[in-house]
Amino acid sequence: MNENAPQNFTPLSSLGEFGLIDRIKGNFTPRNAEVSKGIGDDAAIYAIGNGEVHAVSTDLLVEGVHFDLSYVPLAHLGYKSVVVNLSDIYAMNCVPFGITVSLALSNRFTVEAIDAFYQGVKKACEFYGVDLLGGDTSSSRSGLMISVTAMGRGRAEEVVYRNGAQVNDLVCVTGDIGAAYAGLQILEREKSVFLKNPEIQPDLGGFDYVVGRQLKPEARKDVIEELRTANVRPTAMIDLSDGLASDLRHLCRDSNTGATIYEEKIMVDHQVHTIAEEFQIAALTMALNGGEDYELLFTVPLDVFERISMVKDVYVIGHIEDVSAGVNIVTQSGGFFPLEAQGWNHFRESE
Amino acid sequence: MNENAPQNFTPLSSLGEFGLIDRIKGNFTPRNAEVSKGIGDDAAIYAIGNGEVHAVSTDLLVEGVHFDLSYVPLAHLGYKSVVVNLSDIYAMNCVPFGITVSLALSNRFTVEAIDAFYQGVKKACEFYGVDLLGGDTSSSRSGLMISVTAMGRGRAEEVVYRNGAQVNDLVCVTGDIGAAYAGLQILEREKSVFLKNPEIQPDLGGFDYVVGRQLKPEARKDVIEELRTANVRPTAMIDLSDGLASDLRHLCRDSNTGATIYEEKIMVDHQVHTIAEEFQIAALTMALNGGEDYELLFTVPLDVFERISMVKDVYVIGHIEDVSAGVNIVTQSGGFFPLEAQGWNHFRESE
Repeated sequence: MNENAPQNFTPLSSLGEFGLIDRIKGNFTPRNAEVSKGIGDDAAIYAIGNGEVHAVSTDLLVEGVHFDLSYVPLAHLGYKSVVVNLSDIYAMNCVPFGITVSLALSNRFTVEAIDAFYQGVKKACEFYGVDLLGGDTSSSRSGLMISVTAMGRGRAEEVVYRNGAQVNDLVCVTGDIGAAYAGLQILEREKSVFLKNPEIQPDLGGFDYVVGRQLKPEARKDVIEELRTANVRPTAMIDLSDGLASDLRHLCRDSNTGATIYEEKIMVDHQVHTIAEEFQIAALTMALNGGEDYELLFTVPLDVFERISMVKDVYVIGHIEDVSAGVNIVTQSGGFFPLEAQGWNHFRESE
Repeated sequence: MNENAPQNFTPLSSLGEFGLIDRIKGNFTPRNAEVSKGIGDDAAIYAIGNGEVHAVSTDLLVEGVHFDLSYVPLAHLGYKSVVVNLSDIYAMNCVPFGITVSLALSNRFTVEAIDAFYQGVKKACEFYGVDLLGGDTSSSRSGLMISVTAMGRGRAEEVVYRNGAQVNDLVCVTGDIGAAYAGLQILEREKSVFLKNPEIQPDLGGFDYVVGRQLKPEARKDVIEELRTANVRPTAMIDLSDGLASDLRHLCRDSNTGATIYEEKIMVDHQVHTIAEEFQIAALTMALNGGEDYELLFTVPLDVFERISMVKDVYVIGHIEDVSAGVNIVTQSGGFFPLEAQGWNHFRESE
């Protein structure tokens, strides 16, 4: 009776870094002429007339995979669920205006818990000026699942894709990175301390910055606005959700280029260094592979170097090279290493 | 440490029929002037300029709540996931053009299983002329969760909301109803037979129509097009996802009206009658409370009666009354009963 009994058993984890998305994308060529970008960027882009476009992006957050409710307050989770989606819209150089939020949740959630979650959603809507347009709620057999879709608008000629980087372009990153991952390590440590002895209160002291970056990230609306004011249009852009290494490789793959970046140019907060030492992980590893920073990674032509240097919180960390050069990092000690992506394969780790 | 430990314990099931959506809606008044309809209709509507609007709607499908993979083929599930969302766009009298599809799935799913699901998605995209614009995939701790968002377009003056019904309007339904629910009963019965004795092949013979309505529903694109051709614009419209009783009550509540419908006018397939007899459920109960038919329920002014009678597969089943009259049905035996909604409370039944 079970028609779903697989005749072949190819595990999902065998598909590799970009495998599943590529596999789906290959089967779906846009049929409507308005769609200028379908699957495979931070957001899809479609024309709505008069040179205007809309952008749409969607993200899932699954309990036990993306968040742990033993230390993530629901209001923060509501906020973060919105922000990670808005970040994708900004990464297209578009301005978000609306979201939908759907929840599948088990009966252990109370009305008060849902209220807390939507307070966070509301706060994000207010801060970023977007409307909650709709959603769906359903029971689930276990745990909480959040699905958010964000919509934005922009001018067709101003949209920035992942595939526009050119040889000699400058590689730029906003803010400091690795902090969200470092914050996660602290939260996980305090959770295990608490599980061993519930009398001990969590000690997050001194790590408020990185814990905040993990629990309540922000999208770089400010930088997108400053770039516009400075009259700088990136040639390619992606938001840092999977980690600098993976996301830079993604941008380079789509642009058919290589890149070289420099460890000394990458901003890493001192709390990250402290935590890296404590946990005996290299701070550089946290910065390259941590993910969830929701900073922007973008490229600009060499000739805007002076203008881009004036934009607050933007750092030039390297340059684009020919594809044959590969994607590499020069370390502070002068080493030269290919960037390898980690942390991309959800399916490898789980169940 | 757990900041989510509820201080109050109001169970979700206490919120009542429209409670959770109302609670969320009350906190989110649209801030952007373009948004003419936020939460609370089949889809949200926002202006994109030149009198044009976009519609957006989103639905969750959760394994164990909305579908059972022991008898739902994944290709059908992919198709249905798209269709139930497109149905919401048509219910606004808009034309869908794009969807996003996100999946949370456990590692028991193989590449071949995902391919089968997306074959169904593709088939629906082709039939309804929409593009797959994006999505997200994640692991899940258990089971499959599908989140689809659909986008459509229309003219501002042609959009039909749930709240436009007027006293004396005719209440119309497309096609026959109760079939999807009847099909589900057959599939559930054959599943339990199979579980008791896996040697026995499922017997779906004679019930292909209702099983098809459950496994592979269609959205009424055809009726929306025929209404346009007949120059009939409904005054209010909703798609039949929760069942005629619940959805009519919803339309009446939003329109601040009552309604009377007539059992003898409601189309019910003969297979539904056969199954109703076998399962000792009234066929009328299946038709009123079954849900998942994805037919359209709409109201039109009395003076288009002749024109609407000419539209294929549209049936006038009653009329709109003053709100004081309530929402009632006249049975074939001449009884007169208030319509009560069932089947709306996901949270009551589960975990």
